[in-house]
Amino acid sequence: MVSPARALSRHFTLAHADRLFPVDLPTRTIARRLYDAVRDLPLVSPLSFVPARLLAQNAPLPGPHHLFVQSDPEIVGTLVRHGVALEEIGIKRREGDRVETDAREIWHRFAENYRLFRGTPVRLRLDYIFSVLFGINEHLTPKNADAVYDRIGHSLTTAAFLPRNLVEQCKIEAIGTFAGPLDDLSHHDALRKSGWRRRVAPIYCPDELTDPDHEHFLANLRRLGEKASCNTRSWPDYLDAHRQMRALFKSLGGTATFHAPRNLRTASLPQADAERLYLKVVTAQAKPSEIDLFRGQMLTEMARMSLDDGLTVQIWPGQLRRGVLNRDTGVPDAGGGSADHLRGLLPLLQKFGREPKLTLVAFLLDESQGSYDLNQAAIEFPALRLAPAARLAASPRGLHRFRELTAEWGGFYNSVGTAIDQDLLSIPARHDMTRRIDCAYLAELVITHQLDEKDAHEVAQELAYGLVKRAYRL
Amino acid sequence: MVSPARALSRHFTLAHADRLFPVDLPTRTIARRLYDAVRDLPLVSPLSFVPARLLAQNAPLPGPHHLFVQSDPEIVGTLVRHGVALEEIGIKRREGDRVETDAREIWHRFAENYRLFRGTPVRLRLDYIFSVLFGINEHLTPKNADAVYDRIGHSLTTAAFLPRNLVEQCKIEAIGTFAGPLDDLSHHDALRKSGWRRRVAPIYCPDELTDPDHEHFLANLRRLGEKASCNTRSWPDYLDAHRQMRALFKSLGGTATFHAPRNLRTASLPQADAERLYLKVVTAQAKPSEIDLFRGQMLTEMARMSLDDGLTVQIWPGQLRRGVLNRDTGVPDAGGGSADHLRGLLPLLQKFGREPKLTLVAFLLDESQGSYDLNQAAIEFPALRLAPAARLAASPRGLHRFRELTAEWGGFYNSVGTAIDQDLLSIPARHDMTRRIDCAYLAELVITHQLDEKDAHEVAQELAYGLVKRAYRL
Amino acid sequence: MVSPARALSRHFTLAHADRLFPVDLPTRTIARRLYDAVRDLPLVSPLSFVPARLLAQNAPLPGPHHLFVQSDPEIVGTLVRHGVALEEIGIKRREGDRVETDAREIWHRFAENYRLFRGTPVRLRLDYIFSVLFGINEHLTPKNADAVYDRIGHSLTTAAFLPRNLVEQCKIEAIGTFAGPLDDLSHHDALRKSGWRRRVAPIYCPDELTDPDHEHFLANLRRLGEKASCNTRSWPDYLDAHRQMRALFKSLGGTATFHAPRNLRTASLPQADAERLYLKVVTAQAKPSEIDLFRGQMLTEMARMSLDDGLTVQIWPGQLRRGVLNRDTGVPDAGGGSADHLRGLLPLLQKFGREPKLTLVAFLLDESQGSYDLNQAAIEFPALRLAPAARLAASPRGLHRFRELTAEWGGFYNSVGTAIDQDLLSIPARHDMTRRIDCAYLAELVITHQLDEKDAHEVAQELAYGLVKRAYRL
Repeated sequence: MVSPARALSRHFTLAHADRLFPVDLPTRTIARRLYDAVRDLPLVSPLSFVPARLLAQNAPLPGPHHLFVQSDPEIVGTLVRHGVALEEIGIKRREGDRVETDAREIWHRFAENYRLFRGTPVRLRLDYIFSVLFGINEHLTPKNADAVYDRIGHSLTTAAFLPRNLVEQCKIEAIGTFAGPLDDLSHHDALRKSGWRRRVAPIYCPDELTDPDHEHFLANLRRLGEKASCNTRSWPDYLDAHRQMRALFKSLGGTATFHAPRNLRTASLPQADAERLYLKVVTAQAKPSEIDLFRGQMLTEMARMSLDDGLTVQIWPGQLRRGVLNRDTGVPDAGGGSADHLRGLLPLLQKFGREPKLTLVAFLLDESQGSYDLNQAAIEFPALRLAPAARLAASPRGLHRFRELTAEWGGFYNSVGTAIDQDLLSIPARHDMTRRIDCAYLAELVITHQLDEKDAHEVAQELAYGLVKRAYRL
Repeated sequence: MVSPARALSRHFTLAHADRLFPVDLPTRTIARRLYDAVRDLPLVSPLSFVPARLLAQNAPLPGPHHLFVQSDPEIVGTLVRHGVALEEIGIKRREGDRVETDAREIWHRFAENYRLFRGTPVRLRLDYIFSVLFGINEHLTPKNADAVYDRIGHSLTTAAFLPRNLVEQCKIEAIGTFAGPLDDLSHHDALRKSGWRRRVAPIYCPDELTDPDHEHFLANLRRLGEKASCNTRSWPDYLDAHRQMRALFKSLGGTATFHAPRNLRTASLPQADAERLYLKVVTAQAKPSEIDLFRGQMLTEMARMSLDDGLTVQIWPGQLRRGVLNRDTGVPDAGGGSADHLRGLLPLLQKFGREPKLTLVAFLLDESQGSYDLNQAAIEFPALRLAPAARLAASPRGLHRFRELTAEWGGFYNSVGTAIDQDLLSIPARHDMTRRIDCAYLAELVITHQLDEKDAHEVAQELAYGLVKRAYRL
Repeated sequence: MVSPARALSRHFTLAHADRLFPVDLPTRTIARRLYDAVRDLPLVSPLSFVPARLLAQNAPLPGPHHLFVQSDPEIVGTLVRHGVALEEIGIKRREGDRVETDAREIWHRFAENYRLFRGTPVRLRLDYIFSVLFGINEHLTPKNADAVYDRIGHSLTTAAFLPRNLVEQCKIEAIGTFAGPLDDLSHHDALRKSGWRRRVAPIYCPDELTDPDHEHFLANLRRLGEKASCNTRSWPDYLDAHRQMRALFKSLGGTATFHAPRNLRTASLPQADAERLYLKVVTAQAKPSEIDLFRGQMLTEMARMSLDDGLTVQIWPGQLRRGVLNRDTGVPDAGGGSADHLRGLLPLLQKFGREPKLTLVAFLLDESQGSYDLNQAAIEFPALRLAPAARLAASPRGLHRFRELTAEWGGFYNSVGTAIDQDLLSIPARHDMTRRIDCAYLAELVITHQLDEKDAHEVAQELAYGLVKRAYRL
């Protein structure tokens, strides 16, 4: 086997210093200056799938075949779509299946199909990670697959790649991680007690307790009652149990909630009606339209609690793809949901949208539906911040369109560049892309004489750091 | 206090000669040539909130704090969203409120928050007005706020800034202004008799008489009856009253109607059915669906009248933000409405869309919904012209997308660059932006060899002047 | 009359070597290199209105006035919209109408209005055809109209312009042509027997037999029964008749089906329910919702048959504009339909979307609605390929947006650059445009360091030829 250093030494191509910048040289030069001033700002990732356990235990990351293939649903999905069997990459569908267990073989399947990612956000992310974090400067091919595997595999065994060291070296200042009210928060507790300076914030995700269509809804309510020592079949007690759990999350560093309702509908019922509705829900007497109404009411209740405890409310239209593989097919679920019902936010906004204490982050699913309505709402309701969801957040052009769509309405200061980070290594990759695109966008405003470069520098700082920091109080 | 001239003399930056042009130099050079040939064409603003009274009385404009802060709902809205209280900028919510009355203090609040407008259409507009009209060449800051205030304030007291002089110096050839059938048109009458050469055209806006959900609908019908000396509870008389009022508007220079229905629905009922429906409406027996149907029928009736009197019909999807502050909150209303129902135009179009005498301007609310359907309709129905509404009209990229979305279907000659001008000073600012963007778009076609520069010059003239002139017979 | 050669000799402007390439010179240089490597690849047009008869008979094409005016619904539509009467261009509305019969006069009406096509896809197409195929290098004007007419008219009488020679000289390797199951396929048969090497594939378009709202639906079923010698009022026999007809199409070179349902809805009923539904349909007892359901079920049945016979399934959302003139108005029909219901594909996709034997091409109607859902589906269901419909396929910016919208989700390999070719001469024009835009898109990825130029070359080959070739097995 060739030594990794040897095989990979040719020239630096994967993550060019000018990538994603405007093609016109004078514009590119401005973008470079703007980017150079923000590239080293700390990273704030308020929304991630990084498990608290990873940081609490601080054990080495798994091998390359797991990190970049098996555990990444987009990569698995692409491979499967183009004819690779799950067994070939070591994923079992059913107990008893015989699957590939040789890590290197799995890695070779990946390398053979690496062309499929050309022009995709996945490739951009991997280019950054391979090049900047692991010092690899060649595209993955069947030929260099072993060398790349060795280089990454070796790096992962070093102290520098232990999770907490990665966080520190990448200047990650704070990470929000999804958690349910019923989840075990002992890792958060351990982190808190460990004295580690970085902030790891559990995000309060109560969908399993606010969506009567959840498969274990009633059982979940019982478990909530046990945790909160109250009778959650009573509406006041149920609300109080949420308040207790939110307080617990907050005491562990939490600053935000997250909701991914099936339909983006909100409601603002009088409390007596809400209570009657709840009683129907917990006795399984609610009709589908009432269940829908209840979900909508709970979004408003969550916002009401935020007026007291200050947690930032995040609403994601359509159910979130949880980043897990479909149990039957092994490939990621299509996310359902759409932005059809963004105007469904209005009841909540009319109730609390002008409360100075509330920050409500709504995610724009794509650039088509609802952008008119949401932008209008963002103009009217000071509480509202717009963030890019899904494709808008993941892709360079999507992000550019997000800026176009929001800045030309209400300017930069109503937005917040939040997006979901899938794993630890993705955090610096995603922030780097976002900062580059934002600087490219600002450089275009400068070169077309819509903004002074001095002002653009101030805006770039806000987009890269200030806005998200303030919106999440992280 | 420093002299304004001194404080503002540094260098010219606010409205650069090349602003909004393509970044690529050869393309920019073509855009410059195209723009230079249209920049001094007269301005036609068929749709504005400029009150006829302003031009009839020709009194000086109010001070800077009122002109650029208090009277601009977008600016007020942005300030409020970011924590400025209405009281601080001198706006009363309720009688008895104590509010700031010092004009300079109000102006300082504006200056302190001026950064919020970075990257927005508001800033582009102000850059133009401050720089080109008032000779100010620095961004507004707390430091130069007094000097800027003095410069503008002083200018506004000079003869050059009297409304009619502004109209003449800005080469505004014609202005359409919103008016209701029940409004006092004496200022239009006075203008007509004054012998002032510029055309000021009242736009016939009958929503208060065609929307049964209007809060004073029945009272309005009575008032219409009094004005037109007929019994407006009779369908033929009601229609005739409209005809009379339209004739009155026309005699005062009017050339167009304007409709902003709640839902974009049209209907084409037999007259007997329409009459029966009207009788239900005026006796308050109509169900919501019938009220909706009636609104739709009235759009078609208005188009039918246009076959006789030649008024151009304008339809804006979704209720118009009237540019006024919400009575409860002091900030602008979110405009309701959406483009969902653009296909609602079909009944009207199928009835009259091929009439050579009709011009029907439909506004595209944004680039997402309905553009496919509306473009298809514009291909099929010669009467239809597409215009950019809301964000598409106000922002550089929005306008660029409007051109993309319409030109690539039916070419340039089905469109009309109409947009609402909020006030007198906005008219030259908006036209300058539109002309720059159109020339930038054409320059891109030239440099990519899709259009000869000679042809591009002809198209630029049409977009800047010819198409709107003809569509509105102004 | 001046000699055509003389009148047209000035300089080459119509189809510039760099047209549609990026404006930035370094990017343009990369685009040129990519394009030069794919420009001469064979053309595959899987979806066209080219009649098999044209190629079987191989008679000369009709004169310029017919080819470029009368038979092109977009051109007729534009002329009519801008005031040209159908009679003036020789089109009869009713028997007995007196219409212009002088071909040259008709051509002059076209020349006088040629400016209307500025900035449209029609002009791009004509620029290519006039310049590259007929050697004309001036825009059509009233002045050169006769010379251009002569040049084209003369060319059309030469052997080089006989249909089969055109196919060969333009390197058209395969053409799919629309055909119904009840259509006469003798021309396909003749072509098959003639020994001509080029593939002409009839596309199985059964809407007239699967849509109970079709005006002759029941009669069509009877005719199908006669052709297939079975009782098509029985569900198994009806399905079997489809199978027979598909086999016939396949034996004549067919590789695909095509469906343009009124609503994009699919269904996946148990066979017993499907049978009961069919019995209602054929006895005219089905309610509208059941008719809709039946149409949806038939899409799934067609996909099921494709698992056996391998025909690629094509679904176009919304009824297709058949390229014919409306019988009453003489202008093309607005296509109805919209992309609202793209999620209607889900039942079919959940049933067969992961079958490795199935290829299902879904057309994106525009960039707004449904792109989120369809892209998600394309990620989940390996059978699905996305293609640009309507405006996206016809216009340079539309195609560019199609690439943006699809590549940033699933990369290039889920797409297929299929589009409808209206006639023989349009095939090379449309392919040239598509290849230029794809190379321009790739060049932007290269210059922004998202893709190596070497990789871009491979992708360009796939987009220009490989993907469509494989998706249609042509």
